[in-house]
Amino acid sequence: MRAVTIRDRQVSVEEHPDPEAGAGEVLVRVMAAGLNGADMMQLRGFYPAPAGAPQDIPGLELAGEVIARGPGANRFHDGDRVMGIVAGGAQAELAVVHERILMAVPDELDPVCAGATPEVFTTAYDALFTQAGMKPGERLLVHGGAGGVGTAAIQIAHAAGAQVTATVRNPDLHDAVSEFGARVIAPEGFAEHGPFDVILELVGAPNLPDNVAALALQGRIVVIGIGAGATAELNLRDLMQKRGRIQASTLRPRPLEEKALTARALERSVLPMLASRSVRVPVAATYALAEARQAYDHFAGGGKLGKIVLTIAD
Amino acid sequence: MRAVTIRDRQVSVEEHPDPEAGAGEVLVRVMAAGLNGADMMQLRGFYPAPAGAPQDIPGLELAGEVIARGPGANRFHDGDRVMGIVAGGAQAELAVVHERILMAVPDELDPVCAGATPEVFTTAYDALFTQAGMKPGERLLVHGGAGGVGTAAIQIAHAAGAQVTATVRNPDLHDAVSEFGARVIAPEGFAEHGPFDVILELVGAPNLPDNVAALALQGRIVVIGIGAGATAELNLRDLMQKRGRIQASTLRPRPLEEKALTARALERSVLPMLASRSVRVPVAATYALAEARQAYDHFAGGGKLGKIVLTIAD
Repeated sequence: MRAVTIRDRQVSVEEHPDPEAGAGEVLVRVMAAGLNGADMMQLRGFYPAPAGAPQDIPGLELAGEVIARGPGANRFHDGDRVMGIVAGGAQAELAVVHERILMAVPDELDPVCAGATPEVFTTAYDALFTQAGMKPGERLLVHGGAGGVGTAAIQIAHAAGAQVTATVRNPDLHDAVSEFGARVIAPEGFAEHGPFDVILELVGAPNLPDNVAALALQGRIVVIGIGAGATAELNLRDLMQKRGRIQASTLRPRPLEEKALTARALERSVLPMLASRSVRVPVAATYALAEARQAYDHFAGGGKLGKIVLTIAD
Repeated sequence: MRAVTIRDRQVSVEEHPDPEAGAGEVLVRVMAAGLNGADMMQLRGFYPAPAGAPQDIPGLELAGEVIARGPGANRFHDGDRVMGIVAGGAQAELAVVHERILMAVPDELDPVCAGATPEVFTTAYDALFTQAGMKPGERLLVHGGAGGVGTAAIQIAHAAGAQVTATVRNPDLHDAVSEFGARVIAPEGFAEHGPFDVILELVGAPNLPDNVAALALQGRIVVIGIGAGATAELNLRDLMQKRGRIQASTLRPRPLEEKALTARALERSVLPMLASRSVRVPVAATYALAEARQAYDHFAGGGKLGKIVLTIAD
């Protein structure tokens, strides 16, 4: 099979041995696979694939068609449309995925959108609901609202009855992001727009002091992205007075059973939103597998709204 | 009635009007009332009593006898022995307390120990179980193990099946603290003794960087005390890799219903430990009400193991 390959901090498309489905696993003919910030970090050498995942084939999410099943795999049949997160190896013609990680693709979702759905919606759902325990009516601030996780978070929070504010650095994107259901503000002076019950941090540590200042009583800060910096001063007295919480997380290194739980949560809460089109997956551009390097360049250039997706098979 | 009085950063004992029990409240003849760090902070002008609490009478916990009940108060009868946390005003001959805040004193607990029980055990239980969600078998680090909350936390965690380590600065107290059920270590280099699933921070922000370093995967840091300093640098990348959580809290400003919930939790989980004597309340010294200033001086001097308690009525 052909696959996007990262070696010596270069992106290429190369031949690899076809993978085989092991116990409980499904062999998927990949139709689409979204790019994510973690792929860029892996390209820059900062985020090696966890043990057990393909080391040189990037890609954390895919949608495709089941074409074979390993021993004991019985959740799906050949020909079923599936999507899911993986620890690596999604940007390839074939991928093996444990069946408990996979979700059936709703009929209303086309393959390109399906391939751009799992990572950002899983990340956003896990952060907002599983970690922060966000409730209807709560005031959410999303830092980095124009990114993939940002637009996913805004939409599912809005659909779940939260009051959503988002910071977006590029003024040209403010109107488009507001259409996802958020009041959009510039990052500068964001704390004046608080207080917030939940703050989803997708930008980095420089926001931390103002995040604590903008936190409502019993507020929660969930840190998922730190591209703008990892360290900042924390005032614990302020956090005590807010009775606040700072939690930080990554999705990729989690064990199979935890990822399976996130898939079940998405099936229950987010797939109905996608099926009813109350939530949608913005796609900025698609590239064929052979154009992987251009796709990576586009992603690295920034300024886009929506996902970059590799379309691998029809 | 006579009461300890804090005015112009001085401790005295003065006459105050007798309080009267309002709706749902109980009038308690106070038998014993423990001193706590918050009383010292109030004396130093840093921690004013919340609205609705007596402003110039300190004291956050008491044990005594019910002598009258306001309209609708029916959980207790006159003569019942009760104890509980209050938002202020405990160090007095009489105090009014909402009946939902109060707990019946187990027969096995003498009045002096009862008056020294509610604050530290409520604080420790709330931090370890309600906030950190500590589970049996988890590895707990208590920073400041010789203090009132520290010894309470060590004991209930040990009784609940946790593996407890405690830092204690004074080497003379190591043996005594270890008898509560902890491996006792010096604060210097504590992170080498990790990892820890839960870290109870009773000392301050200077420990924060090493706390994050010593955290186990999915570990929780709960900050309750910051006497040694409020600010420190936080590395969010490290916290993300640990999938860790920092939460900070205070007990005193919480609304009635939340304090009532902590009382119910203590009745269920901690009173049986006290009744069976698997957990005990160390008392360092008792003082009569008239000796309140000496009691405060003793507390401020530090170096003690156990509570300082005012014995107000027999």
